[in-house]
Order: sequence, then structure tokens, then C-alpha cells
Amino acid sequence: MNNHYDVIIVGGGVIGSSIAFHLSKRGKKVLLVEKNQLATKASSAAAGMLGAQTELEKDSPLFRLARKSRAMFPKLSEELKELSGIDIELVQNGMIKIAETDEEMSLLKSLVPLQQKLGEVTEWVPTDELHAQEPALSEHIKGAMYIPNDGNVSAPSLSKAFALSAVALGTDIQEYTEVYDFIKEKDRVVGVQTLAGSIYADETIVAGGAWSEQLLKQADTQLNTYPVKGECFSVRVKASPITRTVFANGCYIVPKLGGRLVIGATERANTFDETVSLNGVSRLMERATKIIPELENAQWEKAWAGIRPQTGDGLPYLGRHPKWDGLSIATGHYRNGILLSPITGWQMAELVEGKEIDDHFRVERNSIRELRI
Amino acid sequence: MNNHYDVIIVGGGVIGSSIAFHLSKRGKKVLLVEKNQLATKASSAAAGMLGAQTELEKDSPLFRLARKSRAMFPKLSEELKELSGIDIELVQNGMIKIAETDEEMSLLKSLVPLQQKLGEVTEWVPTDELHAQEPALSEHIKGAMYIPNDGNVSAPSLSKAFALSAVALGTDIQEYTEVYDFIKEKDRVVGVQTLAGSIYADETIVAGGAWSEQLLKQADTQLNTYPVKGECFSVRVKASPITRTVFANGCYIVPKLGGRLVIGATERANTFDETVSLNGVSRLMERATKIIPELENAQWEKAWAGIRPQTGDGLPYLGRHPKWDGLSIATGHYRNGILLSPITGWQMAELVEGKEIDDHFRVERNSIRELRI
Amino acid sequence: MNNHYDVIIVGGGVIGSSIAFHLSKRGKKVLLVEKNQLATKASSAAAGMLGAQTELEKDSPLFRLARKSRAMFPKLSEELKELSGIDIELVQNGMIKIAETDEEMSLLKSLVPLQQKLGEVTEWVPTDELHAQEPALSEHIKGAMYIPNDGNVSAPSLSKAFALSAVALGTDIQEYTEVYDFIKEKDRVVGVQTLAGSIYADETIVAGGAWSEQLLKQADTQLNTYPVKGECFSVRVKASPITRTVFANGCYIVPKLGGRLVIGATERANTFDETVSLNGVSRLMERATKIIPELENAQWEKAWAGIRPQTGDGLPYLGRHPKWDGLSIATGHYRNGILLSPITGWQMAELVEGKEIDDHFRVERNSIRELRI
Amino acid sequence: MNNHYDVIIVGGGVIGSSIAFHLSKRGKKVLLVEKNQLATKASSAAAGMLGAQTELEKDSPLFRLARKSRAMFPKLSEELKELSGIDIELVQNGMIKIAETDEEMSLLKSLVPLQQKLGEVTEWVPTDELHAQEPALSEHIKGAMYIPNDGNVSAPSLSKAFALSAVALGTDIQEYTEVYDFIKEKDRVVGVQTLAGSIYADETIVAGGAWSEQLLKQADTQLNTYPVKGECFSVRVKASPITRTVFANGCYIVPKLGGRLVIGATERANTFDETVSLNGVSRLMERATKIIPELENAQWEKAWAGIRPQTGDGLPYLGRHPKWDGLSIATGHYRNGILLSPITGWQMAELVEGKEIDDHFRVERNSIRELRI
Repeated sequence: MNNHYDVIIVGGGVIGSSIAFHLSKRGKKVLLVEKNQLATKASSAAAGMLGAQTELEKDSPLFRLARKSRAMFPKLSEELKELSGIDIELVQNGMIKIAETDEEMSLLKSLVPLQQKLGEVTEWVPTDELHAQEPALSEHIKGAMYIPNDGNVSAPSLSKAFALSAVALGTDIQEYTEVYDFIKEKDRVVGVQTLAGSIYADETIVAGGAWSEQLLKQADTQLNTYPVKGECFSVRVKASPITRTVFANGCYIVPKLGGRLVIGATERANTFDETVSLNGVSRLMERATKIIPELENAQWEKAWAGIRPQTGDGLPYLGRHPKWDGLSIATGHYRNGILLSPITGWQMAELVEGKEIDDHFRVERNSIRELRI
Repeated sequence: MNNHYDVIIVGGGVIGSSIAFHLSKRGKKVLLVEKNQLATKASSAAAGMLGAQTELEKDSPLFRLARKSRAMFPKLSEELKELSGIDIELVQNGMIKIAETDEEMSLLKSLVPLQQKLGEVTEWVPTDELHAQEPALSEHIKGAMYIPNDGNVSAPSLSKAFALSAVALGTDIQEYTEVYDFIKEKDRVVGVQTLAGSIYADETIVAGGAWSEQLLKQADTQLNTYPVKGECFSVRVKASPITRTVFANGCYIVPKLGGRLVIGATERANTFDETVSLNGVSRLMERATKIIPELENAQWEKAWAGIRPQTGDGLPYLGRHPKWDGLSIATGHYRNGILLSPITGWQMAELVEGKEIDDHFRVERNSIRELRI
Repeated sequence: MNNHYDVIIVGGGVIGSSIAFHLSKRGKKVLLVEKNQLATKASSAAAGMLGAQTELEKDSPLFRLARKSRAMFPKLSEELKELSGIDIELVQNGMIKIAETDEEMSLLKSLVPLQQKLGEVTEWVPTDELHAQEPALSEHIKGAMYIPNDGNVSAPSLSKAFALSAVALGTDIQEYTEVYDFIKEKDRVVGVQTLAGSIYADETIVAGGAWSEQLLKQADTQLNTYPVKGECFSVRVKASPITRTVFANGCYIVPKLGGRLVIGATERANTFDETVSLNGVSRLMERATKIIPELENAQWEKAWAGIRPQTGDGLPYLGRHPKWDGLSIATGHYRNGILLSPITGWQMAELVEGKEIDDHFRVERNSIRELRI
Repeated sequence: MNNHYDVIIVGGGVIGSSIAFHLSKRGKKVLLVEKNQLATKASSAAAGMLGAQTELEKDSPLFRLARKSRAMFPKLSEELKELSGIDIELVQNGMIKIAETDEEMSLLKSLVPLQQKLGEVTEWVPTDELHAQEPALSEHIKGAMYIPNDGNVSAPSLSKAFALSAVALGTDIQEYTEVYDFIKEKDRVVGVQTLAGSIYADETIVAGGAWSEQLLKQADTQLNTYPVKGECFSVRVKASPITRTVFANGCYIVPKLGGRLVIGATERANTFDETVSLNGVSRLMERATKIIPELENAQWEKAWAGIRPQTGDGLPYLGRHPKWDGLSIATGHYRNGILLSPITGWQMAELVEGKEIDDHFRVERNSIRELRI
């Protein structure tokens, strides 16, 4: 391993790995440093939904970012397969967002023209048609908004494919290496202090998910982020009872390859505790079997949790540190880390090359304050 | 390994291992043959309750057997620790059988004098007293029958301790060795055919749990047994909310060492499928959190299932084969395998030594029929 | 589930799953019965090499079968991906069979023209060229035979993809269902006895790997097969030190996706014991690090073993039972189960449709004898 | 949970848990904070040897500390069993330190009188006697020093028993809670900053093993410690080939309950990487099978690694921080963490109560330097 890099990326999750991939494509000499093992936290816990429109209620910078990122997947899938041999299991069969009450029905119906106006494909599927298409859905469901362009990938495969493709393009990876401070010269960050020694680079990018905030305190910075635990479980079935991801209030059900369904996700703020609570699992089970009654007979597989980084205003941080040259930040993707990973990697690569990027996500917006004067 | 033994025991679960232990104590040269690994099926799936009185509603041979077996545990625990070093985690702090309805209360109250008449210690704990003793119990619980002499052990440790103690006393163990037939000479079984060759012995004992019935067809015998799947799950807590095992309608909650609680068990007849169904787990969760509401906050650990051998009349088979000399059977312990393992081992050892044993459990009672004339 | 099928396949490994796939493509109503879970034995233990030429020393029926099967993979890979979504990770970058001694070099060199005469592509790579191509190989290696058309797949993914594709085409799968006998009518097998009851079919195919022999005793048949344990281990590396599978005397090293290398395999006959011995692992380690010294620094992952069915004359059994109508057999694939699975599935489907198949592998050749007159 | 404690202990390994146990016995209100889960690092990786004399070559403060700690185990074992129900699997059958060369023999023989002079029981076992006692040892072994009073425990059970006994005595435990800074008032540490908020206490004790050094930088302190990885593996046997722990140059072989043997341990300095290297395992295997040839046939179980904290002068740090009141340190136990855990817990409890403790291990000895003036 070198001791000087063009770019050091701190954090080996899906975001850090995508940045490494995009930077190494542009010829940068990159080091990806991870304190444990690659993609063992939120990046592997994710259900892998690509839900750019699922929660779209009005035009917004986040929606436009998500739309761009979603559009990158088909080509990316081929590129990563080519470089790493790994199939990210991209499925583009759409999502259905169901209405269980009249209120939900009204709301969803009103979103259809709104999303269409924004240029997105979507349509309202009335009760009878929905039950004809998806006979496993409970009778109480009143209809659904169908979003043909959303889909899903295997989150662990995507993370691994980014990392291995980056390696194929020259990136170095160092696991079990905790970064605990920055090396500063004048107003510039020139590297990082790790438990395994100092490493130098022209640029340092912090992509540590929910753990970014703590490290950035060493750069006298208090990000406005907080961890949100999400609990999930999975079942095995002989054949999936649904053809598409079902998105409901408080629950989504994602059919994966090989007869698995992933059901997620609870939201519990302000904890780094990765254990799963009985009532988390129990609430998800109740919702899932209410929506698809025959899931009762599915085979229990396992439960798990991941810690996602949410921000004060709900937007990720993507940009340069307001004060320290050579330091950039990419975190706060909350429940959209998988979906936003391609565009995040691309934007951070642009930024390293000195180009302008979308400034809605800049770090110095109202959500940051300095720690020490 | 020899090729001739005093006794071959087919089945390396808790029953087979106890028989091996008791026989080797008496100087017999024993071979314990197991088709997979020791104690990987029902013996490890068990919650380890020693509930001799829990379901006692009237005097019966099964109750008297259970009482004798329960009484063997304290001395056995020391003996196994001495021989194998393994602590079976015997806890003798009693059990409480709770009443959730007036009907259950009447029934339980009526059982108290009945059990006392049979010489057992038991008492009725009225509402207030119960909630004072066990404040974590839900308010709707109306009282409980307290059984001070029931308790629990670690089922996997008990199985392992029996097997290793038997080894310490001279038993040979052969894993990954499936027995598929008996070797017969005239009217006598003189050994077994295994996938690893023939093995000879003066006596052969089938202790294969739910899998015994199939093997015994090779001795032209149709046992009246059937498999019953039981599903369980476990949680972790900082400190147990209850001091004793709680036994309720459709659910028991067993505090184990190290901050674990085991919740069991569903009953699904006629399947060897060891998977866990969503509704099995979900039903147990609902019952457990209804009884102890704060379990909602407990940490999910895992779910599993075991296949237990039930019989037509609910009694185990313990005795000689009615027709083939040299062949005995010990199976059909259903949900009482852990509790009955000591007495079963002792009785089968008596039987091998030619002594009379309790004939309520003899194999040739109405529950067996011959396969071929 | 029905109770009458066109075909029952006993054994849910890669062979049984391929047969199910090929039969359901032809419109047959198929049941695949497995006593444990699909593909948990030898099919998942395999390293996944497609070595049609690796051990080719002269023309033979087995070689011609292997060549046909290897040729099926590219199209099959796409078909299975389409039907099941699963990528079998087909890698067609060739294999190198190395010479470590002068004798090995002479032998390998002599095989080159021989294989070419049989229509196969192969070439001798001299010392310098080899070390230039594969600088991680130890200096003592004198050259290699390069076989561009051999490759590898993910064995677990292939098994799963066959099974799920079969399901997509209408196959029923029943796990945890042990078949212990056949249902016979006159000279015909009309179904199977399982622990979960009787199931009927026009045709029954036994594809139980090393466990087939035991079941076939119930059809008064003694196959000439025996189990051979193979032990393997795997390591993780940042980047594979070799670009192609390396095949050596007593050891092969297979680069898999995601920075894994699988090293196999020992051969220990006549045991069903799936444990791994210290000297098995240790011998493989020694060979592997002698061939690729830098493997010393690789990260240990895990060790495992599988039980493969070998036959008396080294050829698989593929054909009808010589005496019982309605019963066929597909087993004895030894170390070639993954490679031969496509052609085996195809041939057995032909056979069920009443067509002639290659009779070199017929069951009644000298390797079978009747059990009881 | 409170927000003010008598003592906060940072680090939930065997050292932190012992301190919590000893402090809560004295009535202190204790919080044990752990960044991941209790005892998942070096404390569980340890083989559990209690080798006070194994490496004793002359009188030293470390030896006297080890001797005191070893003497605490018998009573402690009963106390922990009583409080937590957990059996720490204390085995006091001694250790044999073998000589494989004449030089080793001379050295060991010379240590016998030396150790006896220090009041320890030890004796030289000549070749013939040794091989009569331990027939599985290789013939090349020339004799051994027998140390009857050394023994071993289950390291994971000991850690768990300390923690659960502490909880039984009132300790609070908070897992998944990383401490990243201290809260200071004037010259005093009054609590810790965690990712889950601030917590206050009269006294803070850092017992974070190899990770202590990094945290203490926040107290402007540079401990002279470094991490040393140790790799181990375990095998399963039907019956242990040795009756006592065998200690050799570069390798020890520890018989554990239940037919397991643990073989350890390599030493690789200056890494936090917990992966196991091929050559680490391979070297240990070679040593172990050279010493006990029949281990070749043992069943491979698994390999693992732990990161132990070594110090510049080889002595642990046990004492108050030289400058910050309210802050103490207990780390640097290297390979003696299990053995020294009882005495460390006891001494730190003394220290919190204001008593003098052994000052050979004080923090301000030459091995510490201040970070910033």
C-alpha cells in the first residue's frame, strides 16, 4: 500500500464504495478505509428498493437526485458485472403503493397526476384490477398506485460490486482500520490518522454513514444528523405471492430472488443499538400478514437491523467542508442510500475534479454548526 | 472401534445418550450410533422444562414415571458434572401455571388438592400475591398454581453431558452413521446394518425419536407414533422479568441462564419439516407479550423447531420388541423427553440386565401392529 | 400439492434439480422430493469446476458426455437467469494444468496433441511464458497445459437456479420428506412411500447422490457405488493472484467472484462422515501454498466437506432400472456432478419421453447385482 | 437508566466486567458501557489458560500479581455460579511445559528449583514418565516441567459470569454505546460523551483493551501500548488425547470441556485486523501435530483471532490517570487478561475506594507521554 493517495474515502459502505468506483474510473488513485469490514452495516441491512417515486409528493431536489440515480442503474448493472463479475440482481418490475383506507386512496389518487406532471410514469390501479393482478393481496385493499419504473437490487451485492469494481480499476482497500482524526496543515486536511498509522492524500471524503458525525467533530464540525434504526425480517416461500414490491403505510414487502421476501422497516431514532426488538418484528409481521394473508404460512428466515443516517432537513450532505480544504462529506442518505449511491459516487467524483455539483445538498446549509470557536 | 458390543443404541439424542450412560455405568460395552450429529434434533430444540406436575390432572403411569425422573436430577447433575465437566444448568425454582380466565382459575384451583393428595407440593397463589411476587405479569392474570418442585435444565447441555459421561465410562460413539436395517438370526436381532457396514451386539435398542417408526418397519413392525413439530423462539433481556417458568394456555416462558428467555411451543402434527412458520412465531409472540407485556422490549434472538414423537395413547414405548429377541425400543416421549430421559435410561438398563420394568409402556400394547404376516 | 405426478424425482441436489428443470420444460408435471433441504450436500460443497478436459487422457464415453454438457452452459446460463433471476456465475476463462516435475511435464505435453486430435483446444505453455502470464505461481513450476474452454460456475447458485427455474415451469418441491420405499404394482414402480405419506407417479427417478444406493435396496438392487468424502477450504484475497483455475496433482485452486479462492479436494472413500479432518486441511494448505506461495498471506475463510458418489467402473449410472418399470436412476457422478448436471437432466428427460439415450451408462452393466432372488 | 453513577467503566470485556463485579459488591452504582456487545473481542478469543507459572523465569511484580489472581479462581468460581448461574468451567489439573530440544530441557530443568524457591509447586517429569503419563505426546519430546496449580477456564463463560453477576448486584450495562470523549470540569473527569449522549459519574475507568489508547488521546495522553493479534483454532475429538494443557515453544494445546481442544496462538504486532491468515493457521497446525501426532485425525472446527493490548515494558497499566482526577485506567494485560481479571477487578475497586494499590503498574511510569502541551 502506498502512503499517498489522490483521494482517501473513509467508510466502506455502499456510498464510499460507489465514490471509490467513480473516482477510480477517472484515473484517481484511491484508498477506501473501513473500520470493520466492507458493507457490514446499513448497506447490507437494506432491502434494496429503488423507490424514487414511492414517496414523491411534490417536486424537490431530493426527488430530482433520486430520479437521476435510478436512471443510472441499468447501465451500471452491466458495467459492474463486467468489472467484478457480480450480478447486482436489478429487478425493474415496478412497485405498487397500496391504499388501505379511503383517505389513503384519495391521497394516492391525487398523487398520480402530480407525478405525471413531473414527467414520471404512474397510474392508479382500481380495486378489481389490482386483485386480479395480485390475487394474494388482502381483500380490504382498495387499490394502488402503480409505479412501473421503480424496482430493486440486492443491496449487499451492489456494495460488493462497487468495491470490487473499484479494486479492478486500481483502488486500494484497507479494512479493520479506524480513522480517528484528520491530519491538518494550515487550512487544509492532508490525510487521516488511523489506528494503523497516518495516511496522506490530496482529498479526503468522509462517507461513514451514521458514524460520520462523530469523526467530523475532529474537524470542529457538528453535522446535524442522527441515527435511525430500521428493523427488517425475511421469509422464504416456494413462489412469491406478489409479482412486485408492495409499499404500504408502515411496511414494505420486497420479493427477492430465490424465493425470499424482505419485509421492512421500523424506524427508531437516536440509537446505534443494532439489536432487533420483539415489538419491532411483531409489528412488521402483523402489517405484512394483514396485507398478504398467506404470508402466515411463509417460512421464517431471520430478523436484523441497520442504523441509517438521517439529517435535520431530510436531505443528504454532499459537498465540500465549509472551512477545511481537502475535506468533503457524503452522508445523511437515510433510507435512500442504495438508490442514491450511483449519483452520489458520480457527484463526488465531479467535485474532486473541481466541477460544480448540485448545491442543495451542500454541507454548510443551516444544518451545521461549529463546535469550538 | 470394536465390531461386537454388548449393546448398540440407535439414536444419539437425549434418550439414547441417557441409555448409553446408564448402561456403561453397569459395565456394559456400548455403541451409540447416530445418523447425523449427536443431539441436533428435538433434544437440542427443547426448552428444557422439568414439568412433572405442570399438566398433572389425575394419577397416571406417566405422572408416576415423570415424578421419579424429576427426582433423579439433583444427584444426576452432580454425577454428570463430575464425569464430563458439563454443568446441565439445573434450576429448581419452581413453575407457575397461570389462570387467565375464570374457567382456568376454577380448574387450576381444583387441581391443587388433587395434586396434594397425590403427595405433590403445590399451592394456589391468589391475584394480589402473584402480582406482588411477579410484577411483570400482565394485570389480567387472575392467579396461578405454584409448583415449587418443577424446574428446568439446559437441554443441549444435558444431552451432551449424558453422551460425554457415557464416553468417559467406555461408550463408543459413531456419528454420521445411518442404521437402515437389523441383522437377524432366527428370531433374534444380532446387530444392525449401517451405511458404514454391519455391527453386531447382544442387544439393540432403538431410541431414534420420531425417526424410530420408520426403522422399525425393517423389523416388520408398525409403531403407532407420529411426529409433532414444535416451534420456539428466544429473546435476550438485561434481567429476567420473571423469577420462575410461567406456564400458560398455549405458551410457556422459560428463563434461562445468561439473560435468555425461551418461549414455546406450537404443536403441528404429522410433519418432519423443521422450518418455522410466520404464524407459529407470531402466535407465540402475541401470547408471550400478552402475559408479560414488557417482553415487547426484549431483544429478538432466534426461532427454531423440533420434531417430537407422539404416540396413539400419549404414552412412550419403553420395552422389548414383542417378537424379536435382542431388540428393545425407547421412544414416544413427545414433549417430555428431557424430563423423562433419566428414568428412561435407568429402566432400559434394568431391562438389558433382565429385570422387570414398568409394563405400562410396553411395546406390544394396542398401539402396535404387524406390517407383514 | 397433487398426489399424482408424471414424474417424481427423489433427491434435491444439482442432478435432481436439473432433471426437474428439463422435464418441466417438456410439460411434465414433476415433484422433486428431498429429505433435508435442497442442495445442502455435495452440490453445495463443490468448487464448481467445469473440467471436461482436465483429466482427459483418452477418448471415452465419459469424456464425450462431459464435452456435451460443458457446451450446454452458455445457453443454460441465460435461460436460468431468465427464469429464476439467478446468475450461475459462469466463468469461461480456461484452466491451467501445471507440471511440477519432469514426469508431469512429459505426460502433459503428450496429452496436448492427443486432446487436439479429439477436437479439443489445448496448448502447452512453456515455463517462461507461464510465469509471465501467472507471476504468482511458484518458480518450481515447469509449465502448464492450457485448456481455454474449461471454466467454472457457482455450484450453489447452479443448483438453486435449476430448482427455481423448475418451479417457475410448474415443478412442485417438497423438502424434509424422506423417501424410504417404492410403491410397486406387479412389475412396476407407481410411486414412493415417504415419511409424509404415499405419492404416486408414472415415473420415479432416483437422483440421491451417495444416498441412492441405500434406497435402491428397497427395489432389491445393489448398485456398485461408494461414497467418497472430499474436503475443501476457501480463502479471501484482495485480488486473485491467478487469472484462471489452477489444476495440480492433488489440489486445485479455483478463483471465484468477490475475492474468494476455493482450494480442493481430498478424497477419502467409504465414509458418510461430513466432518473435516485436520490433516485434510493441512495437506491442502501445504499444496496450495507450494503452488502459489503468496497464498500464505490470504485470509482464512472456512473448511467443509461433501460426500460424492463414486462407482465401481468410474462411470455414472444413467438409465432405467433393469427390472422395475417406471423406475430410473441418475447417480454416480463422483467429482463431475456440476459439470454433468445439464446433460444428465437432458438425457433423463429424453428417457422419460421414451427416447434412446447413451447406453454406456446403463444401470444393468456389470456393476449391479440383485439383492434377493 | 440513571444519568449519574458512582463509576462508569468503559469497555465490556473480561477486565471491565470484573471491575464492575467487584465495585458492585462494594455497593457502588456502576455503569458498564460497551461500544459493541459484551466480550466479543479478545475476551472471547482467549483460550482461557491460567498460566501463572508457565512463563515464570524470575520473580517479578507481574508474577506476584498473576499468582494472587490465580488463587482467587476457586472461590470466585463458586461466587459467580451462585450469582449468575454460570459455570466458568474451572479446571485445575495443571499444565505441562514440554522440552523438545536439549536446550529447552536444560532451561526448563533450571526453572524448577527457581520456581520452587519462589514458593511454587513444580517438578521435572523425565522422558519415560512423561510418555507413560501422556502417551499421545510425540516421541521426540524429552520431558516436561509439570505445574500442578495452573489450569484453565472458559474465557467466554468467565466474561459473561462477571457481567451477569455484576448486573445481579445492581450494575447497569449499556451495549452499542461508543464513548468518544470525556467530560471535564477543571482538572477532573466527570463523565463521558457517548454517541447516545452524555453520562456523568464520580469516577471513570477505561478498560477498553487494545482500544483504550485511542480513547485516552482525548485525555491528552499517549499510552505506550500496541495491539498484538493472536490467531487460534480448535478441533473436536472423541476423547482428549491429553489430560492437561500442553505448553510448548510457539504453541499451546488446551483441552476444553466437551471434546474440544484449543490450539493457540500466533503473535502479530501492530494490527487491529481480526482476520486469520493462512500461514497463521498452518504454522499452528504443524506445531500441534508435531507435538501430538494423532491430532492429524481430529475434526477441524474453526479458526479465529483476537487483538490483545501489549505495553512497552510488558506490564499492564493499573492505576489513576496522572493528571486528570476521576479517571483511571486498566489495560495492557496482553496474553494474561483472563488470568489477571480477578485481581484487576479487585485492585481497581480498592483504588476507587481510595486505597493504595500495587504501584508497579501505575500509569505514569516511563511508558506514557503527554500529547499536547
